[in-house]
Amino acid sequence: MTLEGLRGQAWRRLARGVADRRSAARHPTLATVALDGGAEARTVVLRAVDVASAMLEFYTDRASAKAVELQRMPRAGLHVWDARVRLQIRLRLLVSPLPEEEALARWRQVPARSRPAYGGDPAPGQPLSHAEDYTDAVDPERFLPLRCQVQAMELLHLGAALQRRALFERRDGFAGRWLAP
Amino acid sequence: MTLEGLRGQAWRRLARGVADRRSAARHPTLATVALDGGAEARTVVLRAVDVASAMLEFYTDRASAKAVELQRMPRAGLHVWDARVRLQIRLRLLVSPLPEEEALARWRQVPARSRPAYGGDPAPGQPLSHAEDYTDAVDPERFLPLRCQVQAMELLHLGAALQRRALFERRDGFAGRWLAP
Repeated sequence: MTLEGLRGQAWRRLARGVADRRSAARHPTLATVALDGGAEARTVVLRAVDVASAMLEFYTDRASAKAVELQRMPRAGLHVWDARVRLQIRLRLLVSPLPEEEALARWRQVPARSRPAYGGDPAPGQPLSHAEDYTDAVDPERFLPLRCQVQAMELLHLGAALQRRALFERRDGFAGRWLAP
Repeated sequence: MTLEGLRGQAWRRLARGVADRRSAARHPTLATVALDGGAEARTVVLRAVDVASAMLEFYTDRASAKAVELQRMPRAGLHVWDARVRLQIRLRLLVSPLPEEEALARWRQVPARSRPAYGGDPAPGQPLSHAEDYTDAVDPERFLPLRCQVQAMELLHLGAALQRRALFERRDGFAGRWLAP
């Protein structure tokens, strides 16, 4: 397998995450730097992939901890283990809010049944007396679509005989180089 | 479901990760703070869980980037999405090397076929001219078993009708409280 072949496979698997809700890349794990300086991780839903520009999108609630964390430290990690092709995809991202006009366009595409994910009361992570003491609500101001510029993509392919590891970086057009696994 | 019930389920699923290599918690995602200040994530193998003391273990190569990152910032995150019970488990960890005597005891239990994971030449992440230009080697000095004290466990259960989110913290004996999802 060549560097180009491996890179192409990773992008195809990521793109599949947007198209196919059963694919591994549909629900990557987002790693951020927490306010206390440690690291945090949680599942997000991959919403868009643009291979040509090496950009991704996911959405969050503006009142969530990760929105606050990303505002303070926009360098995040994204992780996918795609068991089907035995490929670990690790992305280093630079995350920023979509410009207002594009954010509005995204909001219009969010189905009515999904809109209550943005605007719950109390806000995500706030204490509750009982598990069910929250109300779903729709608040377009709370909808925060995030754009992720892929700075680097590190791949680890667990082949039957060989482990292949490679790093692709934006600064040289994702040309790629092999690393020791 | 009570706080205690939810907490118990999460610990059972984590313990299952050690016993059953096909369970979700076998391969959690570890989030660390990278040397550039951003966040990184990669798969690790869960090696031990002690529920009573709320401690976990995983192993790495001392020459790996994550070993260096954890030495600098020992506050890490661990993430499991257990689809079978629709439970997201997020742990905040304080990570430290096992004392030498215990590390030696762990090494003796590593099967011969797994030992080449610790000691490859060149070291993990070093550049290679070709994907296969590395040699598996066994170097007990490179074996680094890590102990993770669980500082907090945040759970999100995606029930059919209700999302339940709860936070359990070491400082109050993991008593737990509900949070807005």
